Amino acid sequence: MNIAIAQSGGPTCAINASLVGVFKQGLLTEEIDAIFGSINGIEGIINDELLNLKSIIRTNEDMELLRQTPSTMLGSCRCKLPEYDQKPEIYEKILNTFRIHRISIFVYIGGNDSMDTVVKLSAYLKSIDSDIKVIGVPKTIDNDLPVTDHTPGFGSAAKYVSATVQEIIRDSSVYSIPSVTIIEIMGRHAGWLTASTCVLRANGEEAPHLIYLPESDFHPEQFIEDTRKEMAKHKAVIIAVSEGVSLLDENSSDFQSGAVDNFGHKYLSGVGKYLERLVAENIGCKVRSIELNVMQRCSSHICSKTDIDEAERIGRHALSAALNGETGKMMYFRRVSDMPYAVTIEMTDAVNTANLEKMFPKEWISAEQNQVTDAAIPYFLPLIQGEVNILMKNGLPVHFQRPLQMR
Amino acid sequence: MNIAIAQSGGPTCAINASLVGVFKQGLLTEEIDAIFGSINGIEGIINDELLNLKSIIRTNEDMELLRQTPSTMLGSCRCKLPEYDQKPEIYEKILNTFRIHRISIFVYIGGNDSMDTVVKLSAYLKSIDSDIKVIGVPKTIDNDLPVTDHTPGFGSAAKYVSATVQEIIRDSSVYSIPSVTIIEIMGRHAGWLTASTCVLRANGEEAPHLIYLPESDFHPEQFIEDTRKEMAKHKAVIIAVSEGVSLLDENSSDFQSGAVDNFGHKYLSGVGKYLERLVAENIGCKVRSIELNVMQRCSSHICSKTDIDEAERIGRHALSAALNGETGKMMYFRRVSDMPYAVTIEMTDAVNTANLEKMFPKEWISAEQNQVTDAAIPYFLPLIQGEVNILMKNGLPVHFQRPLQMR
Repeated sequence: MNIAIAQSGGPTCAINASLVGVFKQGLLTEEIDAIFGSINGIEGIINDELLNLKSIIRTNEDMELLRQTPSTMLGSCRCKLPEYDQKPEIYEKILNTFRIHRISIFVYIGGNDSMDTVVKLSAYLKSIDSDIKVIGVPKTIDNDLPVTDHTPGFGSAAKYVSATVQEIIRDSSVYSIPSVTIIEIMGRHAGWLTASTCVLRANGEEAPHLIYLPESDFHPEQFIEDTRKEMAKHKAVIIAVSEGVSLLDENSSDFQSGAVDNFGHKYLSGVGKYLERLVAENIGCKVRSIELNVMQRCSSHICSKTDIDEAERIGRHALSAALNGETGKMMYFRRVSDMPYAVTIEMTDAVNTANLEKMFPKEWISAEQNQVTDAAIPYFLPLIQGEVNILMKNGLPVHFQRPLQMR
Repeated sequence: MNIAIAQSGGPTCAINASLVGVFKQGLLTEEIDAIFGSINGIEGIINDELLNLKSIIRTNEDMELLRQTPSTMLGSCRCKLPEYDQKPEIYEKILNTFRIHRISIFVYIGGNDSMDTVVKLSAYLKSIDSDIKVIGVPKTIDNDLPVTDHTPGFGSAAKYVSATVQEIIRDSSVYSIPSVTIIEIMGRHAGWLTASTCVLRANGEEAPHLIYLPESDFHPEQFIEDTRKEMAKHKAVIIAVSEGVSLLDENSSDFQSGAVDNFGHKYLSGVGKYLERLVAENIGCKVRSIELNVMQRCSSHICSKTDIDEAERIGRHALSAALNGETGKMMYFRRVSDMPYAVTIEMTDAVNTANLEKMFPKEWISAEQNQVTDAAIPYFLPLIQGEVNILMKNGLPVHFQRPLQMR
């Protein structure tokens, strides 16, 4: 029997570790012959663009290197499967690829859109009495998938963000004049990654002095008021804000579209720049905004060992589940204990996570809506523990190089 | 005899290592009693705000922690000394602080503005027949100080930038559609840091496919043409650009001031955003710009061991030089050999570096003005070698905490 693996959605530091997990478990399973990698997520299955992974990942060193290489080795897609009724030919193309290559198991590593694919594809295969199994492996730096305690990829992103915010705290406090530094962190709907900066308190940092999430009520006047209060206490005020913070003020609703550049085009700036201007206008002090941008999802040089190890482990479990006859499921982590940290790997119907989002808990947001409470720290802390021994060459991390046909 | 140390200019990852170097050498020198740290550069000397460093840096562990803590432990300033004729009272205040605390040696760690202070202050002290010695220790991530082969702080910034660009290369190449990613790197006048991304070739990377520096001729039409050419060869084109690239096109000269936001204020965007819009308008493909921002100068979690060790070493030499009676000098590195890498530490009159800039050599810029030639690689490569064993706690780097009165 053969199997296929694909990766989908936005890149993370851990999505290749999950690929390695499925691959390793495949090598260990006697009845599995070929292990195919699908190029660019489900697109590769639809278009019959597969790679023979055994010819690409050849040694233990290759596997270790791939585990510590960020982004998706097999490429990715943002493609959502249509309903069967609307485009049956897509499903027939998928089935055709599975049949040509005698693929009995398809493991899809991705976020909630990918789980939607797991739901639709497994239902279709069941409806035609096919024995082909489809299993989902979660991944997203946003940590917003329901059911699972957390998602592979999140721990590494959180470690990068908190380590970087700590360095920005040092950088921001050198001059004698008062200043405000605003750090914009990914998370359009869910504030997990921004909230995770509360872990700095475990190392004695007071900053970020203010934390705003999409889940907290945000009012520009209150923001200015909060900032003034913190400036009375700290020379260099540090503010962490999610890119998706909801601006309730009617004037500010166009913060992403109001500015026009000298070509007459609308200027798309983020919430960080918007808040920077609010501070400049209303307080008039030194102010800077910093966007952590894609570095949040690809800075594997400071990835979390816990995250990378778990990502591999959940990949292995996914293949085992499929071999046990499961289909239409997503693997997930159930937390047994914060300290000592322990999780088990379980499975749930993928329909319980597809297209759904898990928000940061309201009870971990301060009454003032501008901080995360200490109760959140034991949740985040285990996820950023441990460092991967990064292979270096010429003073730089070494990355697994994709096969030539993919560059 | 007592000595004083101060740090000045923009933060780097190595400026605290130079402080440790002076401090360690001070501990080893029998005739030195108190070692003072001046708060916020020369301001602390002017205003008599000194710390007793021996009571703050108490153990070998403290020294090691301080070596790996980014930014300036003693704070910084952007203060340039006036000429003596214009404000003699400033010089008298400085002399007063030196006399009250019996300070015989003042070591100033900073960039070319700080070397201007070394020149003026040492000349003043000589003119009044004072025996007090003033020595400069270079530091800047811009690597733009004359005379010295390179500056402490640059190697760590270059290592962070190249490691991060490599990760962005992985991140940018996941989707099947063509894309352009523009990475804006610090350097208002000198392109050293942007140019240093050529080291990625040593690890087999082809990207950045285009590198634009302040020292290269830049024409927007040629930039679009260059980008189109690279798009014909690569699915995901990566462009590294210095923040200070000179825009020769008369229309584009106002790229930093033309946009007006919905508050009617001019919108200050950088060259990255400007080039992003150029690509969007002229090519119309997927395009993203990324600003590496202050992370370039404070990401000590991936600092260069070579840089940190050299920064400490040059600090030790600075104090030795002062003890040998030198004054008005800046310490510098003279490169003996690229491979094996070897430098000696020398000194020059600070006037040779004060207020001067060293540009990236024209002969290392390609004829097309859009790349750095391979000849630059042996220059950069030794500077990013080696990793510091970063002390971690709770999954995060530990930083040296400043004394309470400085927070």
